[in-house]
Amino acid sequence: MKPVALEHASRLVNHGPTVLVCTAHEGRRNVMAAAWSMPVEFTPPRIAVVIDKSTWTAELARASGVLALCVPGAAISDLVTTVGQTSGASLQEAGSDKFTRYGIAHLAGPMLGLPLVAGCSAWMECRVIPEPHTQQAYDTWFVEVVSAQADERIFREGRWQLDDLNADLHTLHHLGAGTYAVAGQVKGSRRLD
Amino acid sequence: MKPVALEHASRLVNHGPTVLVCTAHEGRRNVMAAAWSMPVEFTPPRIAVVIDKSTWTAELARASGVLALCVPGAAISDLVTTVGQTSGASLQEAGSDKFTRYGIAHLAGPMLGLPLVAGCSAWMECRVIPEPHTQQAYDTWFVEVVSAQADERIFREGRWQLDDLNADLHTLHHLGAGTYAVAGQVKGSRRLD
Repeated sequence: MKPVALEHASRLVNHGPTVLVCTAHEGRRNVMAAAWSMPVEFTPPRIAVVIDKSTWTAELARASGVLALCVPGAAISDLVTTVGQTSGASLQEAGSDKFTRYGIAHLAGPMLGLPLVAGCSAWMECRVIPEPHTQQAYDTWFVEVVSAQADERIFREGRWQLDDLNADLHTLHHLGAGTYAVAGQVKGSRRLD
Repeated sequence: MKPVALEHASRLVNHGPTVLVCTAHEGRRNVMAAAWSMPVEFTPPRIAVVIDKSTWTAELARASGVLALCVPGAAISDLVTTVGQTSGASLQEAGSDKFTRYGIAHLAGPMLGLPLVAGCSAWMECRVIPEPHTQQAYDTWFVEVVSAQADERIFREGRWQLDDLNADLHTLHHLGAGTYAVAGQVKGSRRLD
């Protein structure tokens, strides 16, 4: 993984991939899948992400004020579906968490120390911008990216570089019910006269 | 085009496609491209979309309180890039608009009468939910879908159905600078034990 300049961080989710939201607070931690996120600004890099207010992820993010967004690739689609369909709160009550339960390899983020899922194509550590109204009314959280990294096999010079050699890292775009469109085919365009 | 049940409308942008935002007010009209949108709720179907507050689209949407979101397919990527890179305000000053200037075929939406771009894979007419703070701070508009239609060749029974026969309608996911990842390859997944 190589650092991504912060002015390019929004590009990591510009094309609408499903992300993993990782949280931690006082020794507890969680990871969930979020199909609904989007950049809202390039500089500073800010992203909106929908996190149901009733979730364990929301509780940890409220308590810590931070969260990480990981961009998974096609090779780990089963993992993405699994963390999207299981409850971190239930595992917590049993003294476990999704990382342990499903053997999810992870490492610590460089700036905030948040758990980052190994094997993802890109990662961002983010600070939550306090916006209680949109969290309450729309489950919409605004965050600001403070560190970003990407696998240079697929994201270089501020751009996704999708080709046949990095197919395992191609991003997932959730169609519903654990089925994804995989971003692979690339199409240029031209401005009409 | 066939009607889409409102409880399935959010699915139309669940996977992060670039959309066209169409607006009209008192005989003036515009269309722009927006790479940044996401559902925020299934029922009622609500979507967040980033529209720069300084744009002609923002002015028309503020004045009318409504906008349409069209989901374009691969066949019209040049049109998407064109309406994303040109200024409706400048054309308006010259007594024209993008529909006329670029010969964009369109029809009137069934509920609000908004211009809908012909050849798109799906359309939604929406009412703007007044949220001046998020519009000002994040250029983020929350809207509620009031009518939805999709081309049944590619969206049926509440699901995108991507295959080789409907490749022209496959959605566009903006990577930057007029280059798109085209949603085509579909991958299922399973929940891990």
